Parts: sequence; C-alpha cells; structure tokens
Amino acid sequence: MHVMIIGAAGMIGRKLTGVLAEQGAINGQTIERLTGVDIVEPGMPEFSGECEAIAADLSAEGTAERLVASRPDLIFHLAAIVSGEAEADFEKGYRINMDGTRSLFEAIRLEGEKRTWCPKVVFTSSIAVFGEPLPEEISDTFLLAPLTSYGTQKAIGELLLADYSRRGFLDGIGIRLPTITVRPGKPNLAASSFYSSILREPLSGKEAILPVDESLRHWFASPRAAVGFLIHAAELDTAPLGARRTLSMPGLSATVGEEIEALRRVAGEKIATLIRQEPDETIMRIVASWPKNFTAERAIELGFKAETSFDEIIQAHIEDELGGKLPE
Amino acid sequence: MHVMIIGAAGMIGRKLTGVLAEQGAINGQTIERLTGVDIVEPGMPEFSGECEAIAADLSAEGTAERLVASRPDLIFHLAAIVSGEAEADFEKGYRINMDGTRSLFEAIRLEGEKRTWCPKVVFTSSIAVFGEPLPEEISDTFLLAPLTSYGTQKAIGELLLADYSRRGFLDGIGIRLPTITVRPGKPNLAASSFYSSILREPLSGKEAILPVDESLRHWFASPRAAVGFLIHAAELDTAPLGARRTLSMPGLSATVGEEIEALRRVAGEKIATLIRQEPDETIMRIVASWPKNFTAERAIELGFKAETSFDEIIQAHIEDELGGKLPE
Repeated sequence: MHVMIIGAAGMIGRKLTGVLAEQGAINGQTIERLTGVDIVEPGMPEFSGECEAIAADLSAEGTAERLVASRPDLIFHLAAIVSGEAEADFEKGYRINMDGTRSLFEAIRLEGEKRTWCPKVVFTSSIAVFGEPLPEEISDTFLLAPLTSYGTQKAIGELLLADYSRRGFLDGIGIRLPTITVRPGKPNLAASSFYSSILREPLSGKEAILPVDESLRHWFASPRAAVGFLIHAAELDTAPLGARRTLSMPGLSATVGEEIEALRRVAGEKIATLIRQEPDETIMRIVASWPKNFTAERAIELGFKAETSFDEIIQAHIEDELGGKLPE
Repeated sequence: MHVMIIGAAGMIGRKLTGVLAEQGAINGQTIERLTGVDIVEPGMPEFSGECEAIAADLSAEGTAERLVASRPDLIFHLAAIVSGEAEADFEKGYRINMDGTRSLFEAIRLEGEKRTWCPKVVFTSSIAVFGEPLPEEISDTFLLAPLTSYGTQKAIGELLLADYSRRGFLDGIGIRLPTITVRPGKPNLAASSFYSSILREPLSGKEAILPVDESLRHWFASPRAAVGFLIHAAELDTAPLGARRTLSMPGLSATVGEEIEALRRVAGEKIATLIRQEPDETIMRIVASWPKNFTAERAIELGFKAETSFDEIIQAHIEDELGGKLPE
C-alpha cells in the first residue's frame, strides 16, 4: 500500500514516518510506498520500499491535486501552523490550517470522481477546539468552542472531515491530541513549552524554569503515545464511529506538582532540583484556561491507549530520546 | 443608521425587512437607510428613508467587498440555500453557505482595516447543526455534530462568526432557529413541509396530508417569533455572550398530536378533520432523527421569546397571513 504523511517534517510527523518505515506494514498490509510531504522537504528514514520526500504548500493552487494524483491508500494529514503563529498571522492561519485542509479534502473528492477512490484519512485535531467555561472533565459530547483561531481552524477541519466522510468522499478519522510531553528539542515561545522543558532540561542536566503554580492541572500524552494513536486510527474500522469522526484521545490528567514528583521518582532528587520557580503572570493566565481532564470514553472503548502516569511519560522520553540514560 | 439585510427575498427576510421599514428604528436609533440584498432583487416595502434593493451572489468574486463598501451599521446575514439543495448539490452548498458567509466576514475585516469599523452582524444558524444521537433535551453546551452538509456549513459559519468577533473584526451574534411554523405559501418538497401544511392548508379550507405518527415530537417557533429573535439579537449587548456567539433560540417542544389538538381548539373540529393520514416511511425516517427539545437557557436568560403553545403559533398565522379570518 501507499502511505502519505502530510506534515512529515514536524516532530510527530518525523516519528510517525520513522515507525512506519521500520514496521514496513500497517494493518497487516505491506507498505510498498512511503511519501513524506511538508512545507520544507522532510528528511526520510531508511526504507525498503519506494520512498519520496516532497516540499509543497498544501494551500497553494494545484498542490493538493498534484499530491492526491498518486492515489495513496492512507493519508496522514498532520500539517498545520501552530497556535501562536495562527493567532499572530490571521490570514496565514486560515490559509494553511483551514484552506489547506479543505484543499486536500476537495482534491480527494475530485480525484475520486474520476475513478472510484476513497482513501483513509487520519487528521490531527487538538484540544484547542475546546474553550472556557469548561467542566472539570470534558465529555465526548461537549461543545466545540475554541478561543483561538488555531482551535477554530481545527474545529472546522473536524466538521469538514465528518461531512466528506458521510458523503463517502473519504474515510476520515480525526484525533484530538493531548499536550504532547516530553517534546524533544529546545524550549520555545509556546505558552505550553514549560510542560516539556521542566522534564527535558533537567533530564539533560540543565536548569529549567517553572512559570506556573504546582497545583495547575492539564492533559498529557507522550510523543510515543501520539504516534500510537495515529497508527491505531489508521488501522481502525471507522464504522463504529458513525458520523462523529473525531475523537478526544485518552491522556493523563496531572498537576505540575505530580509531574515534578514523577521526575523525582524516576531521576532522583538532584535532577528534580534543577527546576527553578519563576512565576510568569502571562503564561499563568493563558494556561489556566486550558482543558484539565477528558473522559475520552469513545477513544478508550475503541482501543486507543495513552500513559497512565508521568513516570511512564518520562520513561518513554529517556528511552526514545536519551538512549535510556540519565545525566551523570 | 444603515441596516443591510442579506437574504431579504426569503420568507423571514421579507418579514424582517417589512417590520424594520414599519418601525423605522432599531435599538432606539432611526433607520436612515435600508438595503435589501438577495440572489434575486428583493421587493422592498414602503419606507420613509433611503431604500435600496440589490441582486447579488455573495459568493461571487468581489460581491461582498462591494456590499460592505457602504459600511452598514447593522448587517443581517440570512442568505443560504436550504438543506435539501445543499445535500443535492455539494459544491453549490459549500459555495453559497460556507464561502458566501466567509466572504462576507472577510470583506468586513478588510474594510475595517482601511478605517475602523466593527458592524453588528446577526447570523441565522439552524438546529441542523445538531445530529443523532441526541438527548431528549439539547443543552447549550451540546456538541455540534451535523448530519447534513447544510448543518456542517451552518456550524462552520458559527465558528467563523465567533472567531471574527473574538478578534474584533465584527460584533457577531448567531441564532439557531427552530423549525418555523406556519410557513406561508405552498407545500414544498422539504421533509419538514407537513409541519406547516397540516395547519396552513386546513386554515384555508384545503385538505392536508400527515405523513408521520402523531406521537412525533419536534421544536417550533412562528415566523413572527423568528423576526422577533432577529430584532432582539440586533438590539442585544453582546458582551454577556463572551466567546460563544451563537445561541439556540427558545421554541415550543410539541408533538404532532398536540399540534392538531391546538388546531381543533383554535379553528374547530371541521377544519381539523381536513388532515388526512397518509404515512410516508421516507419522511418518517428523516424527521425521526431531528431534535425534539432544547433547554435554550442562555437565550431565555438574554430575553429571547418564543410561543409557549401551538394555539399562539396558529393565532399568529391567522393574524399575520389570513387577515384574522378563518374559512367559512
């Protein structure tokens, strides 16, 4: 089968591409062809089959049509600009996140009109589709009411995915990812950056800054779990989803204090003391409004699995990013 | 002030335009200019101020920009193709209902960039944004999960309205209308047509066909109430809405049996016997999945008012459409 990953240069996209190349199969079928697409040419892993890396802007005229002309059997659509950028550049956010997604779905519909074709499409949405006021625990039937342009664009993507699936143009499944922790790499300007950096930096022997109160609760899964969600979504029979094609993924609801406690347990007191409290009112205000917990009932019933403790999340990071080793 | 009604040739649009022309004011301000827009040139009522009728397709290149160049203070956006047509013609539905709405909001944003302008925009959404499985009573925080392309397009309109409002490009308020009964005119091919015709036809001395079971429950308001919602929405301070800009309107939850009982009470046994049962499996299947009841708590709290019995709905029809008279 032919698998296409749009957004293959992103953190999750790279990991997913790597796992697919290594597995060489999905849902019991051999992957003969693997195509990675991103705004910059994605680096592709070693792969036994046909492998291609394409630099393309999904929202540009004709791009989506060109991409789907090869009629992949399975398309992962992970491409998006992030929340902060979509908020800072209104037009770019709508162009990339909304028009890009719609162009892809439209191109699939029109390609399928030429000759029957209904590819599986796995779309990554976000918990940013939810906005205050929120219940302590968000159920699977709670209102989508985003408070960012990014969340709005993702919610629109979900609606389009459902309608295009209902009409039989594609076989879509959307997954709302928790905040992915521990993100590898460097601290960035995202308000959520500290959730990763207070683990990642100490685990590399560096100091990290904690800008919020330890009582703050939020919703997490590891990059490894995120890749697992994507693969499980691709392998899932979508019939039981009915018309509601996007699912809130399972995750771990934990406080910052619990996160730090887990670091102490896994890596020891010395590493945990590398976290320095430095309250930041702006970050506190932003993250205070974020979801704290989800029932994720439908996803759990359908077999999606996430970590159940921060110990596991930290362990996954040590294994996947640090070669299993802690700093001396 | 300058009021623009987009969709002024439709049933609700005509009534709204008539009421605005007659009142000559809204929210305590004199209406100096009244502009009606529709795909066909709307017939405009007698009006003391400046009055214009424009035939234009909102989704056509440049139309929205041209319309907003006159910088109306208040814009009612009622234009849409109906559910059946949006389902039959996928591309047209998205072009008119989604792209048309987005074009309007974009044109307002870009006009406001030239020189500060933030018009009030009243957008009509629909209970078609909700889809099965549904609770007996739909709350204000229930998931938007449409089962039609029309409902999808309306839900996307709601999301855009909220985001454009949050960003300060316009001051939007959306209202989800119940099934409007009694629609004047003739029976049409809409699955919901019978809800009006089983009242309207007998009240004009004609026979009507009832294709469903009398136990079927649904959600109603009169055309008069719908116009009332629109005017109340236009006059409402949107600050208490927060980021959730669209409200499910209040309405009457009633069974077909209760509807017929009310006809009997208001118009007498002879008229009520003009309803002939002729079960239609297709119609039954479609309407069985529609919402039955709403809490409409937010809208009620904000002062929106609907009828509380079918007697009132029928009375409104007799007064507004039949000159207060029943057939001999």
